[in-house]
Amino acid sequence: MRVAILAHEKFPERAKTAVGVLRYSDHEIVGVLDREHAGERVTDYIPDVQDAPIVETMAEVPECDALIIGVAPIGGGFEESWRADIRTAIEHGCDIVAGLHYFLSDDDEFGALADEHDVELRDVRNPPDDLTVADGNAKDVDGDVVLTVGTDCSSGKMTTSFELRNAARERGLDAAVVPTGQTGIMITGWGIAVDRVISDFAAGATERLINEAGDHDILFVEGQGSLAHPAYSGVTTSILHGAQPDSMVLCHVAGKETVGGYPEFEVPSPETYVQLYEDVAAPITDATVDAGVINTSGMDEIEADPTIARYSEQIGVPATDPVRHGADEILDAIL
Amino acid sequence: MRVAILAHEKFPERAKTAVGVLRYSDHEIVGVLDREHAGERVTDYIPDVQDAPIVETMAEVPECDALIIGVAPIGGGFEESWRADIRTAIEHGCDIVAGLHYFLSDDDEFGALADEHDVELRDVRNPPDDLTVADGNAKDVDGDVVLTVGTDCSSGKMTTSFELRNAARERGLDAAVVPTGQTGIMITGWGIAVDRVISDFAAGATERLINEAGDHDILFVEGQGSLAHPAYSGVTTSILHGAQPDSMVLCHVAGKETVGGYPEFEVPSPETYVQLYEDVAAPITDATVDAGVINTSGMDEIEADPTIARYSEQIGVPATDPVRHGADEILDAIL
Repeated sequence: MRVAILAHEKFPERAKTAVGVLRYSDHEIVGVLDREHAGERVTDYIPDVQDAPIVETMAEVPECDALIIGVAPIGGGFEESWRADIRTAIEHGCDIVAGLHYFLSDDDEFGALADEHDVELRDVRNPPDDLTVADGNAKDVDGDVVLTVGTDCSSGKMTTSFELRNAARERGLDAAVVPTGQTGIMITGWGIAVDRVISDFAAGATERLINEAGDHDILFVEGQGSLAHPAYSGVTTSILHGAQPDSMVLCHVAGKETVGGYPEFEVPSPETYVQLYEDVAAPITDATVDAGVINTSGMDEIEADPTIARYSEQIGVPATDPVRHGADEILDAIL
Repeated sequence: MRVAILAHEKFPERAKTAVGVLRYSDHEIVGVLDREHAGERVTDYIPDVQDAPIVETMAEVPECDALIIGVAPIGGGFEESWRADIRTAIEHGCDIVAGLHYFLSDDDEFGALADEHDVELRDVRNPPDDLTVADGNAKDVDGDVVLTVGTDCSSGKMTTSFELRNAARERGLDAAVVPTGQTGIMITGWGIAVDRVISDFAAGATERLINEAGDHDILFVEGQGSLAHPAYSGVTTSILHGAQPDSMVLCHVAGKETVGGYPEFEVPSPETYVQLYEDVAAPITDATVDAGVINTSGMDEIEADPTIARYSEQIGVPATDPVRHGADEILDAIL
């Protein structure tokens, strides 16, 4: 599939979805929309993913099959400044793939235009309507279940899940990612956006995903939010108890001291987090935090490696930055 | 308001909503529907609430304003065996008040019949459609915020909230309950069923309730589920972090060893639970468990009082069974 990605004013640091699709999907990316970086190229910012031009508007993008909304503002709202590009995309016959709380299919203008041009508005956060409460049976699948957990939102849980999947596949293991958020769903083509599910059914939705994934050597479940997040901790807990993991990987961004978007809330220390995740898991599953991942993207090599070592010491298990060093070392700690 | 309560095959032990309305609301109850106990009376089972006849069908109930669905099956589904009584109620001009996940207003037959007889189908679990993520601002309201938490579902959180409210009012304090579940909403006439809210917004819904309640001497927030529940722990966490309480009251049912409906999951010890609730609260609010409530309804006095004393010792704070001894003693521990 040939796709364009919308990431206005956010590429690459604040466009997690865009970067994830560039890095892990099988799509051919024909252009990235970011009016602040128009004229540059993807590899000017991220050297190790497929390259594409960065453009100002959808009118400059070559023919393609879909436009993916590659940014996710806090709260999942729609930015009116995207409207013109989405309109153009529909008029060019592109499907629109979005992971917003605001469903494009509920937008009157887009709905009418999509009908007229026979394209699909795919709101990947729109959950199935037959979800139920959890039965507590995720443990019944064969194979290891590894959950990525974090010290905040945007701490690398999705990336870590895919990096670990790739490392496991390189060893010949039958490995899969269980996507619980919009980016993972866009990359893999299946999953449920658990944060959009009725809270009573959030653990049940996670459990269903584990069962749908079925027997593998190893499943990497994408966690969401964090246990200490003032708004999203309920989603985190539902995924932890719904997935019943055997093992957890704690993801952290180096230097992060306060919760993203909530400067009055401190991020607990990594060692506090290890204890918290294990204690909350304990009544349902005896999962331990067996490895750590730390994002050191803001640092040079000289600063990064001691930072990784210090993080490993704090949490008492092997740790790495998989973007620098791959995920092979921490895979050993999990298996 | 004159109301009837449907509680077929579940009154009184498994009809929490029915009993809550009988005990704490200002409605006049004209009949309880339970085909297994027809011919008996409410006070044959619960001596200290308003009395009413127990009847087999809605046809035997005197004229009234509303039929409240007073039972909540696991999963919140609709029981087809209730259909005839609801039909009769609508034909007699009664509004129907339900707290199910299945919305009666989505039922074609009831919808048409309600239109025909000009009655309202009130699905109290249907949340507002303008909810948002939490801002983390519940702490800004004046007055103490006390959250009831539990070792399982149906452990007395709603009852404890109302008993503490009544005890506080008897001391001349300005006290209110913040209802987060269907029974509390039916009793007070306001609130949000947080378990029905999109999981990303569950903490935000709780925060909104705190702000809507506003400044009081003391607010008693009705908790839901438990932190160790395989299906509902996410709701519990969302309420804990959304409410940002100053204080928690741990509710427990004497002798409860496994999670209701999940016999393969053990209920952690009360002392483990105290630690768990305080540790999970800590990143957001420094709330402590300051009192305990234990339901000893299955015991005689000789057995109950040592059980209460032992529970108090386990959790390290004053405890009581408010149905036996009132809530005055534990109110002292909270204030």
